[in-house]
Amino acid sequence: MGSTFGQLFRVTTWGESHGGAVGVVVDGCPPRLRLSEPDIQEELDRRRPGQSRIVTQRQEEDHCEIMSGVFEGRTLGTPICILVWNKDARPEAYLEIKKKFRPSHADFTYEAKYGIRAWAGGGRASARETIGRVAAGAIAKKILRERCGVEIVAYVTQVKDLVAKVNPGRVSARQVESNIVRCPDRAAAAKMLRLIDRARRAGDSVGGVVECVARNVPVGLGDPVFDKLEADLAKALMSLPASKGFEIGSGFGGTRMFGSEHNDIFVMRGGRERTLTNRSGGVQGGISNGEPVVMRVAFKPTATILLPQRTVTVDGKPAVLKGRGRHDPCVLPRAVPVVENMVALVLCDHLLRQAAQCG
Amino acid sequence: MGSTFGQLFRVTTWGESHGGAVGVVVDGCPPRLRLSEPDIQEELDRRRPGQSRIVTQRQEEDHCEIMSGVFEGRTLGTPICILVWNKDARPEAYLEIKKKFRPSHADFTYEAKYGIRAWAGGGRASARETIGRVAAGAIAKKILRERCGVEIVAYVTQVKDLVAKVNPGRVSARQVESNIVRCPDRAAAAKMLRLIDRARRAGDSVGGVVECVARNVPVGLGDPVFDKLEADLAKALMSLPASKGFEIGSGFGGTRMFGSEHNDIFVMRGGRERTLTNRSGGVQGGISNGEPVVMRVAFKPTATILLPQRTVTVDGKPAVLKGRGRHDPCVLPRAVPVVENMVALVLCDHLLRQAAQCG
Amino acid sequence: MGSTFGQLFRVTTWGESHGGAVGVVVDGCPPRLRLSEPDIQEELDRRRPGQSRIVTQRQEEDHCEIMSGVFEGRTLGTPICILVWNKDARPEAYLEIKKKFRPSHADFTYEAKYGIRAWAGGGRASARETIGRVAAGAIAKKILRERCGVEIVAYVTQVKDLVAKVNPGRVSARQVESNIVRCPDRAAAAKMLRLIDRARRAGDSVGGVVECVARNVPVGLGDPVFDKLEADLAKALMSLPASKGFEIGSGFGGTRMFGSEHNDIFVMRGGRERTLTNRSGGVQGGISNGEPVVMRVAFKPTATILLPQRTVTVDGKPAVLKGRGRHDPCVLPRAVPVVENMVALVLCDHLLRQAAQCG
Amino acid sequence: MGSTFGQLFRVTTWGESHGGAVGVVVDGCPPRLRLSEPDIQEELDRRRPGQSRIVTQRQEEDHCEIMSGVFEGRTLGTPICILVWNKDARPEAYLEIKKKFRPSHADFTYEAKYGIRAWAGGGRASARETIGRVAAGAIAKKILRERCGVEIVAYVTQVKDLVAKVNPGRVSARQVESNIVRCPDRAAAAKMLRLIDRARRAGDSVGGVVECVARNVPVGLGDPVFDKLEADLAKALMSLPASKGFEIGSGFGGTRMFGSEHNDIFVMRGGRERTLTNRSGGVQGGISNGEPVVMRVAFKPTATILLPQRTVTVDGKPAVLKGRGRHDPCVLPRAVPVVENMVALVLCDHLLRQAAQCG
Repeated sequence: MGSTFGQLFRVTTWGESHGGAVGVVVDGCPPRLRLSEPDIQEELDRRRPGQSRIVTQRQEEDHCEIMSGVFEGRTLGTPICILVWNKDARPEAYLEIKKKFRPSHADFTYEAKYGIRAWAGGGRASARETIGRVAAGAIAKKILRERCGVEIVAYVTQVKDLVAKVNPGRVSARQVESNIVRCPDRAAAAKMLRLIDRARRAGDSVGGVVECVARNVPVGLGDPVFDKLEADLAKALMSLPASKGFEIGSGFGGTRMFGSEHNDIFVMRGGRERTLTNRSGGVQGGISNGEPVVMRVAFKPTATILLPQRTVTVDGKPAVLKGRGRHDPCVLPRAVPVVENMVALVLCDHLLRQAAQCG
Repeated sequence: MGSTFGQLFRVTTWGESHGGAVGVVVDGCPPRLRLSEPDIQEELDRRRPGQSRIVTQRQEEDHCEIMSGVFEGRTLGTPICILVWNKDARPEAYLEIKKKFRPSHADFTYEAKYGIRAWAGGGRASARETIGRVAAGAIAKKILRERCGVEIVAYVTQVKDLVAKVNPGRVSARQVESNIVRCPDRAAAAKMLRLIDRARRAGDSVGGVVECVARNVPVGLGDPVFDKLEADLAKALMSLPASKGFEIGSGFGGTRMFGSEHNDIFVMRGGRERTLTNRSGGVQGGISNGEPVVMRVAFKPTATILLPQRTVTVDGKPAVLKGRGRHDPCVLPRAVPVVENMVALVLCDHLLRQAAQCG
Repeated sequence: MGSTFGQLFRVTTWGESHGGAVGVVVDGCPPRLRLSEPDIQEELDRRRPGQSRIVTQRQEEDHCEIMSGVFEGRTLGTPICILVWNKDARPEAYLEIKKKFRPSHADFTYEAKYGIRAWAGGGRASARETIGRVAAGAIAKKILRERCGVEIVAYVTQVKDLVAKVNPGRVSARQVESNIVRCPDRAAAAKMLRLIDRARRAGDSVGGVVECVARNVPVGLGDPVFDKLEADLAKALMSLPASKGFEIGSGFGGTRMFGSEHNDIFVMRGGRERTLTNRSGGVQGGISNGEPVVMRVAFKPTATILLPQRTVTVDGKPAVLKGRGRHDPCVLPRAVPVVENMVALVLCDHLLRQAAQCG
Repeated sequence: MGSTFGQLFRVTTWGESHGGAVGVVVDGCPPRLRLSEPDIQEELDRRRPGQSRIVTQRQEEDHCEIMSGVFEGRTLGTPICILVWNKDARPEAYLEIKKKFRPSHADFTYEAKYGIRAWAGGGRASARETIGRVAAGAIAKKILRERCGVEIVAYVTQVKDLVAKVNPGRVSARQVESNIVRCPDRAAAAKMLRLIDRARRAGDSVGGVVECVARNVPVGLGDPVFDKLEADLAKALMSLPASKGFEIGSGFGGTRMFGSEHNDIFVMRGGRERTLTNRSGGVQGGISNGEPVVMRVAFKPTATILLPQRTVTVDGKPAVLKGRGRHDPCVLPRAVPVVENMVALVLCDHLLRQAAQCG
């Protein structure tokens, strides 16, 4: 259980990091959407390992194949299954973790819950699982763009203590992709890069914050009371590996203001209701208000490090784990497209829900 | 849509703040649980308006009635409907907001989404809707306590800039209830009280942070990959009115550490795997690891204030809104039991899910 | 679990036959639909006990109250809770069945499943639970009628061995309501009435068949592959108390034909694709084809009879159960509105689903 | 939407008959179940085309591959994806149906609903989609057998007018598999075979009835009120291609009895409550009572025939369709394993639900 997301644009991911393949089934995609593998591959390439020196060097092409649901270049309205073969399976690299629980990894909890775990890799807890999410999100993004011109841009705003300055109202995908950190503030990006490189060489890791903005979101998305737009966004983003926090609009910082400072004043602009400020982050009462939806996700430093760490074995004996080989010193650059695509899944699902109830 | 929460312990709330009644239907409650109205009333009394001078003075007894699902003092395994009559309906107090959108309220978005809104009160967006959540949570809490000894304690840790010191491993419900702010750090609580009083007198409002800890949570709750425990907790808590942020474990602060500092080292203690630190917040890979589950929710300052504010009318004309009558200068003390009960809903649902798949 | 029906027009019924009340919550109803209690009461009156001498004489007015989701005579798009108080609670009439399992009733299975049962009446297994379904169905019917002119008519076509002749293409609600059997074939109805009366006087019961036709159903409702329209209709109608069989179109009789006889030939008529015959019953490949949707439900003779029957006690001792007081010699006339309203729930849900995916 | 079945043992099928592959994702399978491809292949081989002269001669090996969810021969508790490649894709065989709607097929309704259809084969409406169901059902069957000794046997009891005599209490899988009709009454089977052969040579088709019995079903499965066991069985079986009717226990025949004849008398036998007769078909009040669950499905004669038929083109012109090549004169023998596996899916899902709520 738990591998399906969405009510109407229903996404089910499957696959262990070192099994035959990973993939996704999307049920509920509207028919007649132009769709082919390049639409999906483009997004997958952004999350692929080995893109730059600061991300994991696992060798995977992550080439996607559409197995169903598309006919003569258009969606049929039937389930779309997309598959990516696993190529870099090296179970021998994992023999040590068959016996020892890696700190702050899911080894122990999977073992405790299921009484079995795919030790030859991270199994479902591997970041590799997000391939299915990104593939599905690529479809959602396309629907949102074609139907409403929705633009979703995520970017790194913090790496460890380094904080960037970015204007979510204006930031562009081009700016984000202009450097391998995916931070549109170039000065900050340069410092972040040095910090990540230092962590990489030390066999250590760093975390940070990814911010995401969705612009041109139609007014009216979100279903009170439990399926508020921000609640579903929070769930989507807190389901990502290594995420520890979520904020929308003013977030934790907004708690330091008086109500009289925090409230977003309504004005008419361009013939429609707008707000002078956007502390609400584009959402009021759980429903989008037409302003940019702005949110942030905190990612802890990656648990896999190459420094020696104390731990226990599966038999409850003390042990030392010495990381080896490849590690991902900073998950943030590759998290950027994943965040965007998760946001797309939520918005697309609510777009269809809105059509059903209020269309 | 959107008024149901949970997969197996399914909670559906209903009711507008000024309709006939508000309530909840709980489907999936295990049979033969002792349950009667006082079990629920106790929790409702903690969220009731008018408990102290710092919360809204709306006059409601909020007396609950169990309408179904209980027979001779025990649950039947059938849907439990609980109802609370609305008594303090004063539509005339709302005539102004029939015409003007209140800033940072849900008036505009409901109107835009549905083309209609229950202007005589906040409708579904009112905090009154949380009565149903608390009533259902009271049942969930009881199941968790009786089956596993789970203890859930929430408390205020921040009001505006004032930050309390609390040890989530030891804090008790008694300490929380010892003052009307529901902050177990007495020194901080005294300062917070003065601040809230000042805001109240000024017709303004303040926000802050509620922290919640769940102790004795069994190992193994949470369903990767989308229904991770922290993802469902985030959704539950971000669906509360006025919440703008969620953190688990180290949260946003943890992003400032190196991986080598952040990782929770495993040790054997009391014959089972424990972690030396709890930066994970009791959850690894989306599954509870037996450590206390610790999370925080940011609440913005309440949108309702008594100071004059600019806004627009439903016809798109500029206007000034002058708050009147009662307001809630700080939502936090009453949010405390709501947070606890939402956490209980998530944990109870996952307890049943765990029994289904791995029991 | 199990008390919710529908994906987008979500109906949750609650209530035991002898608890405080029975009712329903409808989530997902489109906003701005004119709705008031008489819309619902009209349907409830058709299923009410005591309408005629051939149905149970339990004294209930079954007066409905809308508790939420409607404001100034229109739906808000929020959950609609409808409640009917139980008035005729006479637990003493049930003391015998506290100790003895009634044959072909749900007493034994509820006891075995839940370890507890609401012996003071049939609990959830009582036909009284269908009040919530009918109340929700009344709303669904109204949506279908206003949006697409859908007309749903059910009627009795068989009582024990007596079979009526009815043309589903033309039968009207007025014809159905013209006699207390609710069989539009007047000659058959007269015979059926005599048969039911005989069973009533003998303390026995009879079963039969209810046929239902839905006309003007838009082309395109139904979601392959599991949520085919006929599959959801079958589930809806097989979830009614006492139903033992379901057919659509040619049903079991159609199995006796060759494919060359059974296939429905397409022709153009009125500018659109029609079929010369309707053995498909308005559904092909799980999707409505614009022809009348015609289905039949088999109801066994009511289990409650007044004749003495062998059984066992809850302690596993042989016993004799002697029915007493009121019984329902033929459930069919009251099943007619329930069937109609269940069909309305399925069609309305699929209408919204269709709008979401293909709208 | 509509390609997922089950609440806890969640099955999502995907794939068109002439796309790359067909398959299924099973989410919620308990961990540590021994599972490998032969477990699934065995069931797939029973539904494969080309097994005998009386079924379609399409050439497919239908060799399954487990892509995920199994590690070292045991299930991980994570989603199990199973894939079968399509080999016999011959789009040119379908050029005629690109232009003409086949009578009583899903061509017209898919085109009308989605505005597009996979004309090169039956798409999702093809019986080939049931491969995913059978693969998932093979897992469900294994769980049911290992946990509770549940035995599920389906068989043909009627072909056109020919009716077999079978005792559902005793019939064995070996008897069913003893002839290619899959009818355990050998005398009837011989006659059925001649009838099917005649239809085959004439280019025509015949339908009939498949009966299915599940023995050793634990008491207590089924969730009142909407998810009654018989309701979910009805939905499962009415979602199969070509099914037009469903009965449980006494079914339509039972409507001809008096209540005093129909009621199943309780007696103690073997230390537990049993019924003398089984007109209820193993289900009372929607919950299994420990007696064999017995149900029947009506299958219409296959729509594909080789005789010329009138129809219309996609442009609304009259036309004649002349079947060509292969056809399936009688779907029943291959439907037998599909029925068994759908029943297994329902029972397995309810077994897990029962563990969750009442375990």
